[in-house]
Amino acid sequence: MKKATFYHAGCPVCVTAEQQFASALNPKEFRVEVVHLGQQKQRLSEAERAGVKSVPALVIDQQVFHINFGAALNDLK
Amino acid sequence: MKKATFYHAGCPVCVTAEQQFASALNPKEFRVEVVHLGQQKQRLSEAERAGVKSVPALVIDQQVFHINFGAALNDLK
Repeated sequence: MKKATFYHAGCPVCVTAEQQFASALNPKEFRVEVVHLGQQKQRLSEAERAGVKSVPALVIDQQVFHINFGAALNDLK
Repeated sequence: MKKATFYHAGCPVCVTAEQQFASALNPKEFRVEVVHLGQQKQRLSEAERAGVKSVPALVIDQQVFHINFGAALNDLK
């Protein structure tokens, strides 16, 4: 089971991406964790270390995919 | 069965996204079509109408998700 982490900040772009996207991943292959960085600021540094520059972003196997553009990580600090 | 279309142009960013991403979608829920816009230029207008501005991009149910940034559509014409 691979891990996929979806970082978002509750913005409209994020919510659309989460609903259509994170939920579209193969449940047999991925365990998906959804992290709201606006509410869980203690996880910002973890997201930065993973290479996340903006949200929404999906990290699959240490590979970062930035989806559209919702909010810059710096704006959430 | 919903349809998901993954537009790409063969660039390294695109290939990574395709391998890790398009293949990660739930096969029971989505029929995924992969379109190489560099080789299938006749489908550029279709991609533009769907709202695609750059590749790689994934269109799910008429919603466009631009992933990272590989190449602008205008550069493929």
